[in-house]
Amino acid sequence: MHTETKLILVTNDDGVTAPGIRSLIKVMRRLGEVIVVAPDKPQSGMAHAITVSLPLRYHLLAQEEHYSEYSVNGTPVDCVKLAEKFLLPRRPDLIVSGINHGSNASINVLYSGTMAAVLEGVMLDIPSIGFSLCDYAWDADFISIEPWVEKIARKVLEDGLPRFTGLNVNIPVPVNGKIKGVKVVRQGEGRWEEEFEHRKDPRNKDYFWITGYFKSYDGMPDTDLYALDNGYISVVPVHYDLTAHKAILPLKNLLEDVQEG
Amino acid sequence: MHTETKLILVTNDDGVTAPGIRSLIKVMRRLGEVIVVAPDKPQSGMAHAITVSLPLRYHLLAQEEHYSEYSVNGTPVDCVKLAEKFLLPRRPDLIVSGINHGSNASINVLYSGTMAAVLEGVMLDIPSIGFSLCDYAWDADFISIEPWVEKIARKVLEDGLPRFTGLNVNIPVPVNGKIKGVKVVRQGEGRWEEEFEHRKDPRNKDYFWITGYFKSYDGMPDTDLYALDNGYISVVPVHYDLTAHKAILPLKNLLEDVQEG
Repeated sequence: MHTETKLILVTNDDGVTAPGIRSLIKVMRRLGEVIVVAPDKPQSGMAHAITVSLPLRYHLLAQEEHYSEYSVNGTPVDCVKLAEKFLLPRRPDLIVSGINHGSNASINVLYSGTMAAVLEGVMLDIPSIGFSLCDYAWDADFISIEPWVEKIARKVLEDGLPRFTGLNVNIPVPVNGKIKGVKVVRQGEGRWEEEFEHRKDPRNKDYFWITGYFKSYDGMPDTDLYALDNGYISVVPVHYDLTAHKAILPLKNLLEDVQEG
Repeated sequence: MHTETKLILVTNDDGVTAPGIRSLIKVMRRLGEVIVVAPDKPQSGMAHAITVSLPLRYHLLAQEEHYSEYSVNGTPVDCVKLAEKFLLPRRPDLIVSGINHGSNASINVLYSGTMAAVLEGVMLDIPSIGFSLCDYAWDADFISIEPWVEKIARKVLEDGLPRFTGLNVNIPVPVNGKIKGVKVVRQGEGRWEEEFEHRKDPRNKDYFWITGYFKSYDGMPDTDLYALDNGYISVVPVHYDLTAHKAILPLKNLLEDVQEG
């Protein structure tokens, strides 16, 4: 690591007041200069949404040496974009997002605002890490996982990441105070089941709450789901290429002979 | 194709009244029974967002033989979920989304509500196609591209798609009334530049509109950007695995020796 102070952008999707981001800020301040640019209210489930129909504003909430904190009336992706264009004095050395209240393993990466902020950083070719604790509680115990968060972030600051690659880090709730270690794995297969709760309002009209439970369809040892189930932190390297490369050749035969006439 | 009537779910992100979805509905009704479940207002840029803090409702807007149309006060992904769980009489043979007003090529796939609906269909292992016309105008000429939309959808209904794979179909504005054909390609590299317009409100406070222009960083012939630039329809097969598989091995060495102590 060269001796210049590192610049770290911190964001999340649970909003700037969430205990998870307060924990992440505390850890990152040990590693360098920190600028927080986070949503002013919860943005869970906002995925890679951007705000196109409302103007964005930011507010400076705190400022001291090597530390500034802003809230933005937008999504996590809005926060990264606004930070990179306006609020950061220079290109950051690291973007961290979280610590999310709840797992972003498996397909949850697609719904996650936390991880969308990471992918936005990856598009900018800035090393970016999303941290999630597998506990949805607002008062989840972040303190006991802080040493892990610090060590992973420090490693990435020291050694960098492959270009255009971010990390989806999910941390299990420690069992008897222990986490076994770190596994670098792929995104496992899973799905949400029974996703709506159907209710009647006082006028007897139907409405629906999205709910349900996550079900794993993938017990393979090289997955994030397996690592977490077995007491390890899962690290999935992520990129923003959604191409199903193996399908290109078979589909050429199917579709390239389509003609207008 | 077996003789039973095909069931097709139609959705979009520009809202149920958009000319693009009206065009798509017209075409799909030639191919089978159509159920429309689409957002009640524009949801551009909503990506894979789901609605977790408000209850969802649907409204039946139209019903006749082999046709029903619903609006939902949510995102495109909400629409697919609600359709699959409540509104469809059975598993659909095809999900189509669009026709989007504007390109979803390259990284735009990540911001796109149109394509998020497709990925949600892919998670359910239902053949799913997103159609976009590279023209942002509300009164874009959809009629001249309808024969292509019909032929691509018909092919997929007849022959299916590889499992857990959808299609991101982008259609260029015809030049002299002509489109050259179809290319099956990968997601090209590109980025949005100069993304905010900075203004002052009447009280002299700052606000920002997301704006800017898309810039290609990838001139390779096997990309969607190249196909579109050269007058072809681009078809990118898409999946929901964000794992950067090639980065797993190098990162094992970097991160798996991290210890708590």
